[in-house]
Amino acid sequence: MKYSFKNDYAEGAHPQVLEALIQTNLIQQNGYGLDDYSIDAEQIIKQKINNPKAKVFLVSGGTQANLIIISAFLRPHESVVSPDTGHIFTNESGAIEATGHKVHGIENKDGKIYANDIQKLIDGHQNKPHQVKQKMVYISNSTELGTIYSRKELIDLYQFCQDKDLYLFVDGARLGHALTAETNDLTLEDFGKYTDAFYLGGTKNGALIGEAIIINNESLQEEFGFHLKQKGAMLAKGRLLGIQFQELLKEDLYFDLAKNANQQAMKIKEAFKQIGCEFLCETFTNQIFPILNQNQIDELSTNFDFYVWKKLDEEKSAIRLITSWATTNEIIEKFITEIKNLK
Amino acid sequence: MKYSFKNDYAEGAHPQVLEALIQTNLIQQNGYGLDDYSIDAEQIIKQKINNPKAKVFLVSGGTQANLIIISAFLRPHESVVSPDTGHIFTNESGAIEATGHKVHGIENKDGKIYANDIQKLIDGHQNKPHQVKQKMVYISNSTELGTIYSRKELIDLYQFCQDKDLYLFVDGARLGHALTAETNDLTLEDFGKYTDAFYLGGTKNGALIGEAIIINNESLQEEFGFHLKQKGAMLAKGRLLGIQFQELLKEDLYFDLAKNANQQAMKIKEAFKQIGCEFLCETFTNQIFPILNQNQIDELSTNFDFYVWKKLDEEKSAIRLITSWATTNEIIEKFITEIKNLK
Amino acid sequence: MKYSFKNDYAEGAHPQVLEALIQTNLIQQNGYGLDDYSIDAEQIIKQKINNPKAKVFLVSGGTQANLIIISAFLRPHESVVSPDTGHIFTNESGAIEATGHKVHGIENKDGKIYANDIQKLIDGHQNKPHQVKQKMVYISNSTELGTIYSRKELIDLYQFCQDKDLYLFVDGARLGHALTAETNDLTLEDFGKYTDAFYLGGTKNGALIGEAIIINNESLQEEFGFHLKQKGAMLAKGRLLGIQFQELLKEDLYFDLAKNANQQAMKIKEAFKQIGCEFLCETFTNQIFPILNQNQIDELSTNFDFYVWKKLDEEKSAIRLITSWATTNEIIEKFITEIKNLK
Amino acid sequence: MKYSFKNDYAEGAHPQVLEALIQTNLIQQNGYGLDDYSIDAEQIIKQKINNPKAKVFLVSGGTQANLIIISAFLRPHESVVSPDTGHIFTNESGAIEATGHKVHGIENKDGKIYANDIQKLIDGHQNKPHQVKQKMVYISNSTELGTIYSRKELIDLYQFCQDKDLYLFVDGARLGHALTAETNDLTLEDFGKYTDAFYLGGTKNGALIGEAIIINNESLQEEFGFHLKQKGAMLAKGRLLGIQFQELLKEDLYFDLAKNANQQAMKIKEAFKQIGCEFLCETFTNQIFPILNQNQIDELSTNFDFYVWKKLDEEKSAIRLITSWATTNEIIEKFITEIKNLK
Repeated sequence: MKYSFKNDYAEGAHPQVLEALIQTNLIQQNGYGLDDYSIDAEQIIKQKINNPKAKVFLVSGGTQANLIIISAFLRPHESVVSPDTGHIFTNESGAIEATGHKVHGIENKDGKIYANDIQKLIDGHQNKPHQVKQKMVYISNSTELGTIYSRKELIDLYQFCQDKDLYLFVDGARLGHALTAETNDLTLEDFGKYTDAFYLGGTKNGALIGEAIIINNESLQEEFGFHLKQKGAMLAKGRLLGIQFQELLKEDLYFDLAKNANQQAMKIKEAFKQIGCEFLCETFTNQIFPILNQNQIDELSTNFDFYVWKKLDEEKSAIRLITSWATTNEIIEKFITEIKNLK
Repeated sequence: MKYSFKNDYAEGAHPQVLEALIQTNLIQQNGYGLDDYSIDAEQIIKQKINNPKAKVFLVSGGTQANLIIISAFLRPHESVVSPDTGHIFTNESGAIEATGHKVHGIENKDGKIYANDIQKLIDGHQNKPHQVKQKMVYISNSTELGTIYSRKELIDLYQFCQDKDLYLFVDGARLGHALTAETNDLTLEDFGKYTDAFYLGGTKNGALIGEAIIINNESLQEEFGFHLKQKGAMLAKGRLLGIQFQELLKEDLYFDLAKNANQQAMKIKEAFKQIGCEFLCETFTNQIFPILNQNQIDELSTNFDFYVWKKLDEEKSAIRLITSWATTNEIIEKFITEIKNLK
Repeated sequence: MKYSFKNDYAEGAHPQVLEALIQTNLIQQNGYGLDDYSIDAEQIIKQKINNPKAKVFLVSGGTQANLIIISAFLRPHESVVSPDTGHIFTNESGAIEATGHKVHGIENKDGKIYANDIQKLIDGHQNKPHQVKQKMVYISNSTELGTIYSRKELIDLYQFCQDKDLYLFVDGARLGHALTAETNDLTLEDFGKYTDAFYLGGTKNGALIGEAIIINNESLQEEFGFHLKQKGAMLAKGRLLGIQFQELLKEDLYFDLAKNANQQAMKIKEAFKQIGCEFLCETFTNQIFPILNQNQIDELSTNFDFYVWKKLDEEKSAIRLITSWATTNEIIEKFITEIKNLK
Repeated sequence: MKYSFKNDYAEGAHPQVLEALIQTNLIQQNGYGLDDYSIDAEQIIKQKINNPKAKVFLVSGGTQANLIIISAFLRPHESVVSPDTGHIFTNESGAIEATGHKVHGIENKDGKIYANDIQKLIDGHQNKPHQVKQKMVYISNSTELGTIYSRKELIDLYQFCQDKDLYLFVDGARLGHALTAETNDLTLEDFGKYTDAFYLGGTKNGALIGEAIIINNESLQEEFGFHLKQKGAMLAKGRLLGIQFQELLKEDLYFDLAKNANQQAMKIKEAFKQIGCEFLCETFTNQIFPILNQNQIDELSTNFDFYVWKKLDEEKSAIRLITSWATTNEIIEKFITEIKNLK
C-alpha cells in the first residue's frame, strides 16, 4: 500500500477529537446547533478572534460553506470576484452559479489577487444595469497553491472592499496552515477585524468534518440560520460539529496540528531543494509543488501517491504534495530518503 | 436535568458505530466517497434491497438528500406532490423551491396520501403549459405522524406513478422504524423494487450523521455525483458516512436499534392506553401522540421534555413522544410510573 | 367563425394606441426604457396615483411582472402568500418557485383573502428557521374570479401587512376593470398609498402588450433595473411600452376601455338573470360565471366560444364569459338574443 | 437633435410591419402563441431553413431567448461555453447564472471562438464531478464585434460539438445582417442543419420586438412551451410576434432590411478608409469600429451620436457605429461629408 500525499483528508480525526466524541456520546443535547458544545465553540471562537459581535455557524464542508455564505449575502443581481484558481471558480461543479450568482475569475498571482485586478474587472462592468454588479470578493488563505496573504495584503484588500462597497469573504479551509506558516504575520484576530466573513476549516485539520463560519459584518448575520436549513446544512446532530471545534480550539490543538503539517512539508521542501529542485511557487504551508522530470516522478510513485499538478514541458511537471496533522516523522524520513536517491 | 422525548437525535452514535470509527481512524482512504468503506456499504445495501443495479450515495442529512434528489431528477418545469404534512412541504425552509421546483401539498390521511388524491391534483392542472407539470410523488415512511404504509399501499402508489409517468421517491429518514413496526408487512427489498429512489436514514437510528440515498431507476442514476458536489454534500472524508453505514448494516444492528426504539414507544403507548388515554393517530413506530389535558401535560413536564404537538380544544392537546435506539428500559419504567400516577 | 368570449386579449390594440405607434415610429429614441415616452408615462402614472416618490417600470406581461417583483423583493428564505386561485399559485407554470421562492396558497373566498387567513398560515410556520419565512402577500384586483376588493378590505390588508412586516403586492392585470366596476370604491391613488407595489395591466385593456409596475415602497426600488434585465424583461425598444401607456393614460382612455368591458359584461349578466340563471359568484367586472345546464351550454356554443369553468354537478356547470374594450354592442345584442332563447 | 448611430433599435418598426398589425388588429385570435399568424410564421420559417422537423417559438427579446434556451436545454450541473465577448457572458446582468448555470468565457478572436479553444477549456475540467460539465457552445452571428462565421467555421464547430456531445446554439439577434454581408457564404438552411438551436432576430431588423427561436434538435423540443411560460415569455397576444415575423419573412423583407443596414455601414467604412482610417476589426455587417483620435471623435460628435467602444492608447479610440434598416441615404451622405472633413 502506497502512502498518500494526495490530500490532507485521507485519515479520520485526531485522537483527541475522537475521544471527545466518545466522552460526550450519551449526553442528551438539543438538535440543530443548539447543543451546549456548539454554543461553547461559538464563544471560544469569538474570544479567539476578539470580536464579541461575530456570529458563528458550524457546517460540514467547504463547498457548503461557500455556497451558503455567498447566496445568503448577495441579492440576485450581484456577483462575486474570485482568483481564477479559486475553489468556487473551478472546483465546485457550479455550486455558486446554481444559487444564481455569477463568479468572475480573474488572473491569479500565485493563487492571490489584489485591488488593482479587481478594479480592472469592475471598470469593465460599468454598463449598468446590463452588466452584473460586483458585490463580493472571495479569496482563500492559504490559497489553492499553498501560498498565504501577508497582513498588509489582507488589510489593503479589506480597505479596498470597504471603499468600493464590496464584501470580503475568506475561504479558510486551510486557515490553520496559513496562520502557522513561518512567513505568516496575520493573526486570527485580524480575520475577526479585516473580513466581512470567513471560515475556519476543520476537515483538513484534525476534524472528521466541519468548517466554522464566522460572520463579522453584523448586517449579514441576520436570519442566517434559514439559509443553513434551506441548503441542507443544518445537522440534526449539530453536536458532532460543536464537540470537534470545542476540542480543537479550547487549547491550541488546532494550531499545533496545522503546524505539524507545515513542518513536515517544509522538511520535504528542504530535501527537494538540496537536490537542486525548483518549485511551481514558493510555499510555507502544507502544500508544495516541486518540479520533477518524468523519471523522478515514476520513481517516487513506486511507494508514494500524489497528484501530477501541471505539465510544464515535454520533460518536466510540477507535482503536488500535501501533508497533514497525521503525517508522521517516520513517513517523512522514508520519503526524504527516496528524494535523496532521485537522479 | 429532564429526560428528553423530543426527538430521536438527542444522543451521539451507537457505541459500535463509534468503535468502528476508532478502529479505522488512521487508515488512509480516498476522499469524496471513493473510500473502501463507502464502496462496501454500497454493496451491502444493494444486497439487502436485492437490486444489483441500484446506485447508492451517502449524504449527511435528510433535507440535503431531499433537495439533491428532487433537483437532480426534475427538469425546471416539473413539480413534486407531497402530503401537506410532508417534511419537504412544511419543514425545510423552502429548500425544494430554492432549487426551482414547486411542491404541491395535498391533504394527508394520518400522514399518508393515495392515488386518488394525487389524481385529483393532476386533474386540476390540465391547462398545459400554463400550469406546472407534476412529475414526482414524495412520501415518507414512517411518516411525520409515525404511521406506516402497508405493502399494498406502496405497490398501489408505485403502480399509479408508473401509469402516470411519475417518479416515486420515499423519504426514509425513519425507514428502519417503519420496517420493524409490528404491523409492518414491507421489506427492504420492496423498496428496491417499488420506488424510483428512497433513502435509509442513519441520523435518527444510531449514526452520528448520514442518510443512504438509493436510486433504483437507472435513468436517474447518471451523473448524480455532480449534484452531490454542487449542493455541497460530497464530504471530503466520505469515509465518515461509509464506516457508519457499513457498521449499521453489515449485520442487523440497524434493525435492532429501530426495533428497540419502537418497543420502548409501544410500552409508553400501552401505559397511556391503560389510563384511558386516546391518541391523535394510532402508530406502531417510535413516535406516539397521546392526547392529554393541561394538568397531565404539566405534571409529565416536571421530569420529561417533549413537544406539545397540536392543541385540540380548550382543555386537551396531543403531545409528541419520540423514543430512539438510546432509550433505556430504566427511563421507560420511570416514565411509565409517572404516567400511571396521572389523574 | 364563432365570436370568442374566452378572454380579453383576442384582439390587437385599441386604434388610438396603434395610431400613437404610427405617429412616433421613426423618431429615434434611447433604448431599454430610457425613451421619452416611457419617461413621460412614468410621470403620468406618478401623478395619477399621487405618489411622487413611486418608481415605474414597464414590462411586457403579467407573469413576467410577478416573477420579477417577487424575486427582486424577497431574500432567498422568504415566501409569498397567495389565494389558492392566485395566478402565481396555479397558472404560471412554477414561475415564482423557479426563482427560488415558495408560494403558499391559502383558501380563497370568491378569489379574495383576508388578514385572518394569512395569520393562520403564519401561526402554522413558527418553527424558525426550519419553516420558511412569510414576507409578502399577493392579491389580484380584480381577482381571477372577477371580484374586487373594497377600500376597507385593501386598507385592512395593508395595515395587517405593515403590522406583520409583510409586503403587499397587487397584481393589477385587470386593475382598470376593478376601478371602473359599479360597486368599486377604490381609487388609483389608494393603490399608490396602500400597497408596496402593484401593476397596471395594459395587455387586457387596450394595449398590444404591457404592464406598468409601480413600486411605492422606496426601499424596494433600488437597483430594480438589474432584475428587469436579468429576467429578460428589458426591451431594446422600450418605446413600444412607453408609447402605449402614454396613450392609454394621458387622458382617460384606459378607464373608458375598462368601463366598456364591464358594461358589456353587465348586460350579459342581466340577460342571464332575467332567465333565472344563477352565478358562481357575483361580479361587477368583465368576467361573469353563469351556471348553465349542458343543453344550454351546447346551444350557446353554436355561435360563441367560451370556457366551461367548473363542473358543479351531473347537470350543471359554470361557464366563464369575458368581455373586453373591443366587445361591441352589436355582438352583445346578438348574444343576449341567444340567451333569451335558451330553455 | 443629433442622429444616433448608437444602435439598431432607435426607431420603431418597418412601415410594412406596422401596416400588417393594423390590418389584422380586430380579428379575434387565440392567445399564447396559438394564433394563426404565429402558426403561419412557424411554417414559413421551417420552409426557409428547410427543416420540416424544426420547432419555432417566438419571444420578445434576445436575453429572454438566451436564458430560456439555455435553462431549458441544460441539466443543473451543465455549463455553457461562450466567447468572452459573448452577450450572455458580459451583457445580461447574470441572466444565465440566475437560472443556475455557469458560463465559461473563453478568449475571442474578433468575437469568434474555435474548436481548439473550447477543447482547451474542456481539458482543464477533467476532474469530474468536482468540476462542472460543459454541455453547450454559444456563439453569435454576426458577433458582438460585427464579424461573421464562414460556412466552414460553422460546420467545423458543429462537427466538434457533435463529437464532444455538446449542443451548438447560435444567437442570431443580427443573423439577418450576417447572412446578407458581402463576404458571407452561409445560408439560412445551414442554420437549420448545423446547429441544435438558433434564433432569428426581429428587434434589430425591422420588428417592434421579437426573436424567433428555432430548435432543430428534436430531443430538445419537448415541452419547451413550459419554459416560455415559466420565464414570463409567453405573450397573451402572441399575435404581435406572429404577425411581425409573418410579414418580415413571407417575402424577403427581412433580408432586404438587413442588406440596407449593411450597405449603409459599408459606405461609411469606405469613407473612413479613404481618409486612411484603421479599424478595430474588419467587418462587413452593420457594425463598424473605426479608430479615431480624440479631435476626430469630438468633431463627429457634434451632429452624431455613437459609443466610444475601446480606448486604445492616450490618443486613439475605436468608436462603434451601427446602421439599421431605417438608416437613409440622406443621413449617410451627410455623415460621409463630415468624415471627409475630418483632419
